[in-house]
Amino acid sequence: MTDPKRRGRRPAGEDTKAALLAAAREVFTEQGFDGATVRAIAARAEVDPAMVNHWFGGKQGLFAAAVQLPITPEWIKEHVFAGPVDELAVRVVRQFLAVWDNTGGGAFATLVRSAATQESAAQMLREFITAVFGGMLRELGVDQPELRLALFGSQLSGLGLARYVIRLEPLASADVETLVATIGPTLQRYLTGKL
Amino acid sequence: MTDPKRRGRRPAGEDTKAALLAAAREVFTEQGFDGATVRAIAARAEVDPAMVNHWFGGKQGLFAAAVQLPITPEWIKEHVFAGPVDELAVRVVRQFLAVWDNTGGGAFATLVRSAATQESAAQMLREFITAVFGGMLRELGVDQPELRLALFGSQLSGLGLARYVIRLEPLASADVETLVATIGPTLQRYLTGKL
Repeated sequence: MTDPKRRGRRPAGEDTKAALLAAAREVFTEQGFDGATVRAIAARAEVDPAMVNHWFGGKQGLFAAAVQLPITPEWIKEHVFAGPVDELAVRVVRQFLAVWDNTGGGAFATLVRSAATQESAAQMLREFITAVFGGMLRELGVDQPELRLALFGSQLSGLGLARYVIRLEPLASADVETLVATIGPTLQRYLTGKL
Repeated sequence: MTDPKRRGRRPAGEDTKAALLAAAREVFTEQGFDGATVRAIAARAEVDPAMVNHWFGGKQGLFAAAVQLPITPEWIKEHVFAGPVDELAVRVVRQFLAVWDNTGGGAFATLVRSAATQESAAQMLREFITAVFGGMLRELGVDQPELRLALFGSQLSGLGLARYVIRLEPLASADVETLVATIGPTLQRYLTGKL
């Protein structure tokens, strides 16, 4: 196979998109959300900077995609909130691991590092959590939905931190069923149980 | 009061120690654990680099102190493990908040950012968690002590992440009693309950 790097700029197809995502993860990790420029990411990917707007609608969209945050309220509604309410947490754990295990945790580390460095990234993450889960949690009709969402976020982000960033064993290499059985009840209580 | 910066290098007293801690938090945040040098931190603090060894025994000790990790197994034994076993988690939440709220979460953010950036910092954190809590958890005689410790670490670090880094409300400004009542039962189950 030909090394695409030797053929100069890539065509505006899926190759370009994948190259931009890989470059974005590197540059966001090195320089954080504020420090990373669209130009620097495009240069690393060896594509035209205009492709960032074309594929991701700008730097924020590229960041969201690079750290696996393209999950929308619609996606969550279909994959998580559809089904029995008392198995909500089981579906959350399964989907969380399906999304993040996929990138070996590198995307999660980028996200955490950005949030720990720049208020803009922390704000994006807050808005993401509220936008994706907030409305549906209120629909459940539980008391204190904001506190529940924040507690839920603390355990879910802590799972990511322990598994992908600190890599604390045996949690880092635990299988999905172990995490469903141990962390599931915590998340279920935060969402619908007695606080 | 005289501005100490105008008097050149600081004397080798508590002032020096405080200046080194403040400088360390800045430089570790900017450059990560591996990137930050003892020389750069001492220069920022306007003290002799030898003071780092004098006060902290080296770069690793300075990092631990800067991110509020100087908690020892002895300290934990006295402040957390002493007392009724079924109130273990209550004491953990209280002590965690007492330690970290103190620096407004800045130290926690430095710690998380370092762990997300450098394997050496992640390893230090793993070793810290295991050293401080591991032995005592095994003393409790519970099953699966390693898994329990990792689950415990995931919720506790997630609390820090949500409160100090993402600053997810209402958790970010929740009072101690609210967090004891909501997160306490989770931690207690991870430590001594049915998994």
